[in-house]
Amino acid sequence: MRTVNVGLIGLGTVGSGVVEIFERHAEDFRRRAGVDIKLVRFADRDPARASDLGLPEGSFTTDAFELIDTPDLDIVIELIGGTGVARDVVLAALKSGKSVVTANKALMASHGQEVMDAAAGYGVDIAFEASVGGGIPIISPLKHCLVSNEITSVVGIVNGTTNYMLTRMSEDGLDYDSALAEAQAKGFAEADPTADVDGLDAAAKIAILASIAFNSRVAIDEVSAEGIRPVSSADVAYAAEMGYAVKLLAIARRTPGGIDIRVHPTMIRDSHPMASVNGVYNAIYVVGDSVGETMFFGEGAGSLPAASAVVGDVIEVARHIVRGCLGLVGCTCNEELPVRDIGELETSYYLRLLVADEPGVLGRVASVFGSHGVSLASVIQKTDTAPTAEIVYVTHEATERAVRAALEEIEDLDIVESVGTVLRVEDL
Amino acid sequence: MRTVNVGLIGLGTVGSGVVEIFERHAEDFRRRAGVDIKLVRFADRDPARASDLGLPEGSFTTDAFELIDTPDLDIVIELIGGTGVARDVVLAALKSGKSVVTANKALMASHGQEVMDAAAGYGVDIAFEASVGGGIPIISPLKHCLVSNEITSVVGIVNGTTNYMLTRMSEDGLDYDSALAEAQAKGFAEADPTADVDGLDAAAKIAILASIAFNSRVAIDEVSAEGIRPVSSADVAYAAEMGYAVKLLAIARRTPGGIDIRVHPTMIRDSHPMASVNGVYNAIYVVGDSVGETMFFGEGAGSLPAASAVVGDVIEVARHIVRGCLGLVGCTCNEELPVRDIGELETSYYLRLLVADEPGVLGRVASVFGSHGVSLASVIQKTDTAPTAEIVYVTHEATERAVRAALEEIEDLDIVESVGTVLRVEDL
Repeated sequence: MRTVNVGLIGLGTVGSGVVEIFERHAEDFRRRAGVDIKLVRFADRDPARASDLGLPEGSFTTDAFELIDTPDLDIVIELIGGTGVARDVVLAALKSGKSVVTANKALMASHGQEVMDAAAGYGVDIAFEASVGGGIPIISPLKHCLVSNEITSVVGIVNGTTNYMLTRMSEDGLDYDSALAEAQAKGFAEADPTADVDGLDAAAKIAILASIAFNSRVAIDEVSAEGIRPVSSADVAYAAEMGYAVKLLAIARRTPGGIDIRVHPTMIRDSHPMASVNGVYNAIYVVGDSVGETMFFGEGAGSLPAASAVVGDVIEVARHIVRGCLGLVGCTCNEELPVRDIGELETSYYLRLLVADEPGVLGRVASVFGSHGVSLASVIQKTDTAPTAEIVYVTHEATERAVRAALEEIEDLDIVESVGTVLRVEDL
Repeated sequence: MRTVNVGLIGLGTVGSGVVEIFERHAEDFRRRAGVDIKLVRFADRDPARASDLGLPEGSFTTDAFELIDTPDLDIVIELIGGTGVARDVVLAALKSGKSVVTANKALMASHGQEVMDAAAGYGVDIAFEASVGGGIPIISPLKHCLVSNEITSVVGIVNGTTNYMLTRMSEDGLDYDSALAEAQAKGFAEADPTADVDGLDAAAKIAILASIAFNSRVAIDEVSAEGIRPVSSADVAYAAEMGYAVKLLAIARRTPGGIDIRVHPTMIRDSHPMASVNGVYNAIYVVGDSVGETMFFGEGAGSLPAASAVVGDVIEVARHIVRGCLGLVGCTCNEELPVRDIGELETSYYLRLLVADEPGVLGRVASVFGSHGVSLASVIQKTDTAPTAEIVYVTHEATERAVRAALEEIEDLDIVESVGTVLRVEDL
């Protein structure tokens, strides 16, 4: 049996999970998957991590590029993250004829084409199942099992931190700040939670999924992203009253006008399977023209779940190396669909406004909506917030452009204190 | 681009879905998947089906074996079903060097080893994603994405007919007979519903999943199967009162004593994601030592969903043919784990008994349970069913062997009219 030699760059959370899985199961991989895979080389900026993991003498370097030059190395696992050094490392590894397995969503969402082209050019594999949804199989099912479908939509709860926070706000009435503090205390949120709460992490992931699902490259900077900072426990409670759950959804749809792709807090019917995805769990809901509705659920983060996907990719690439069929399925972006402007979106909106508690307010606000062609489906006014009143509107279907124009004008009315929250209502 | 020629045997529900998908997307497969695949030959016992589908002149035969002999044929799709002719056809196709794609759960669950060995021996692929869960990707994720895990359990709602019936019994209080009649009227259940309602369809599917998940062959006749015939709307209502949903679960667990594998109506906590899988939908819940909990959800039956999986397999095999890597992942059953006797099962039980409505009954029944070491967690007695009383017991954890022995003795008591329903309570 040919041995496949693997180098691991990045010994943080996921990297240590990879080491642990190999310690547990390298023998099983030989027996069950028919491949003899060895982790032979390790790199990290921090030598302390190597000693913590008890790595074999001489197997560690602080220089990722030195690792890439290891003789007889077949696969490089890149777990550095980000688009700086990681990009150089991945491109150098591919150039030197190594296949690469990565969990790097930022890299794949911003330099995906470059990386895929390099892998194809050098005749090696690039695999990135762990970049979306942690251990949940989603990239491989899209590229293989569901390939006979025209995928019409991919909708993900792909950020565990914000899903945990929204779950706590919904189930226990926590406000945003307490939910964030709790997520940080439990290690689900970073000290700087920007990437999670502002929807940037989810935007990278949906860019990757959309590129595969629609066979057309979408980069992260083409994804319109709003986070959950404006969402209050009051919004979550109003939504529940109306039979909805609030989720940070990453949405990608194939439409006649191009790819509709966006991340924002969203109201979905509480009977939909995605509404029951709670806590740090992730789920990706995929609709195809033949398969109909499917959903993939699991742990979207954490050391071992993400490492499960990384090692799954390593085994798959090793099988290809042994059988001489690297590049079996490379880049599948062979169409060039435009990304639709978010202004073209047509959906219903939930809008919470703080206004002066005086006669005639409802009428003045309603007339602004009317002048922009936005018709209202329901209005709830609460006056126990005196001296201001809180009004919650749900619109009929309207375009994003019209709603934004209306809100801009409404914000300028002297009787309006602030536009609180905007949630899109999606009928999945 | 090399053309891959495919022959399709069986033009029923799934077969016509396959034809439809190729009509829609053959050109997309060329562009997106890089393979030129042609459906060139068709077989069915019934020539009327060929004319209904408007197949090209001369492409049809009533003789499956003649189809197999078509020159330059690369792949045979077998959609006959069953273990008679289908087995001969599959083995003949493999022997003649064709790869086979099948949706045949009965064949794979009873002759899986023979078929896998033949494919390996003749150096071709055998693919059967559609045999479990319709269009839901589950076999490929287990064989590829999750291969780095030791899978500890696979639990499926894999029969849409019974899930539809139980959903109607739960949501609308239908009794068993009305639910069955409705399922038949809607085309979800056969005129002879035995395979569905007695759990045999689910047993075949869990045998296939367990064989892959645990790397050890389990055949359908090793699966202990009970169906939903004894389940009444009263049981479903009692379960709901206690916070449980009733589902026909196909369960496979890796235990120190061997593979625990069974199909039976089961009470699960209504907060579990599997409890919200309703109607004809299927879901497979997989737990691995690294990935943790995952769930795969979708349409488990129907023409296009099942055809989606069949054509996905065809494209995958075609890629292997073009790249010369057939047999990339063959049989992975390289362990021989024993199947544990159902008597060894330890779980809680829900038991509904009809007894004489007279003093001392509860005590006499309880003492029989006690003498078998089965301790009771709760008892509900309803007397509005006079002259008999209905008693619902939920036990603490006990062995199946002890509970069965106790029930046998209880059934013989003069005060007991009948043992109604036995549901196992699972803490997924």
